[in-house]
Amino acid sequence: MDKHYVSYGSCCAGSCGASKDITGCRFSLSPMSDDFIDIILSSISKVDTSKIWSKTDRLSTIYRGKRCHVIDALKACFVYSYRKDVHSTMEITLSKGCPGDTDAESHLADDDILLNESNIADIHFPVDSKIALYPMGISNYMQYIADVVNKAIDLGIYDCSSHYATILKGDVQDLFSYFSWVAKYCEERLSHYVFEITLAVNSPTAE
Amino acid sequence: MDKHYVSYGSCCAGSCGASKDITGCRFSLSPMSDDFIDIILSSISKVDTSKIWSKTDRLSTIYRGKRCHVIDALKACFVYSYRKDVHSTMEITLSKGCPGDTDAESHLADDDILLNESNIADIHFPVDSKIALYPMGISNYMQYIADVVNKAIDLGIYDCSSHYATILKGDVQDLFSYFSWVAKYCEERLSHYVFEITLAVNSPTAE
Repeated sequence: MDKHYVSYGSCCAGSCGASKDITGCRFSLSPMSDDFIDIILSSISKVDTSKIWSKTDRLSTIYRGKRCHVIDALKACFVYSYRKDVHSTMEITLSKGCPGDTDAESHLADDDILLNESNIADIHFPVDSKIALYPMGISNYMQYIADVVNKAIDLGIYDCSSHYATILKGDVQDLFSYFSWVAKYCEERLSHYVFEITLAVNSPTAE
Repeated sequence: MDKHYVSYGSCCAGSCGASKDITGCRFSLSPMSDDFIDIILSSISKVDTSKIWSKTDRLSTIYRGKRCHVIDALKACFVYSYRKDVHSTMEITLSKGCPGDTDAESHLADDDILLNESNIADIHFPVDSKIALYPMGISNYMQYIADVVNKAIDLGIYDCSSHYATILKGDVQDLFSYFSWVAKYCEERLSHYVFEITLAVNSPTAE
């Protein structure tokens, strides 16, 4: 049988494979409840995705488009998935600039007017989070990680440093403002970054 | 108020902050069931962790030690969390060589005799997985990613490439054999790698 191998040989650091300005995310919602199907599907369907490209597969949902619209949709999906009594996690990969990326499967809206923010801006609940930033293709990556962690300290959402992640705690609004800041910070300084985020609500574990 | 900023200034690519040979992982189990507390706690407590350092916090569990023992414990925890009718995910960060790492909070066993494998080697169930490898601090990282993806193709566990991840499908035994191979491959070639894995079982979504 012929094996169809991948070849990323033409990709090199510093050159994004896509010519357009595409930020993207892939996220998986895991509500720890017997009602998980309804919670996941209703959250996803409630998000206005008309300014981005979107696809849901067996493992996760992908959004691709302009940074502001991708984060607006991601925040809306997470907010809509919140249930007062349900412990739930959302695992997110937010990324831009992969040398293996292409222009396909994306949608860049003409304007920056957010479609979801007005419906979710007044909703507040506490969130536990862990983050890890991976600036790719450069040797001085630790300084960017430090900058991003120190910004969280400035904002009062930093809880502690731990192995393989930095732990944050805060209101959902403050965390997503910070994630927007991180995405902009990285976009302006790095040709390829990956920002891993896990969000958790209503953990039954004592603090 | 004094803010205590982090400083990763003394860290540089190519030098691991820890002097010992520490592989580590941080994972979060999310069983989508009203019984999630029992499933999580019983899985974690069933794992023999006497050859590694281990800690569970509000968001995840951390294992640190020799590569073989960390992966043995990780596999055992995932296998023990499996319930025939429960959709569940496990999000894993497997890593070695971070310039910010330290020797603290680790345990390197004297031998390579696995403590959990004999209890789980005959358990089989199908798993959906997504993976993403981040070789840090080097510009030619795409070639290592291609090698790791092509190994999955060789093993017959590759499903497809997607945005921000490679999708795998296979028996739990075959996936963990592959993850062991990836960790060894990376350890031998990279001073700092991060390997992100998500595992999912019993998804109700049609293939």
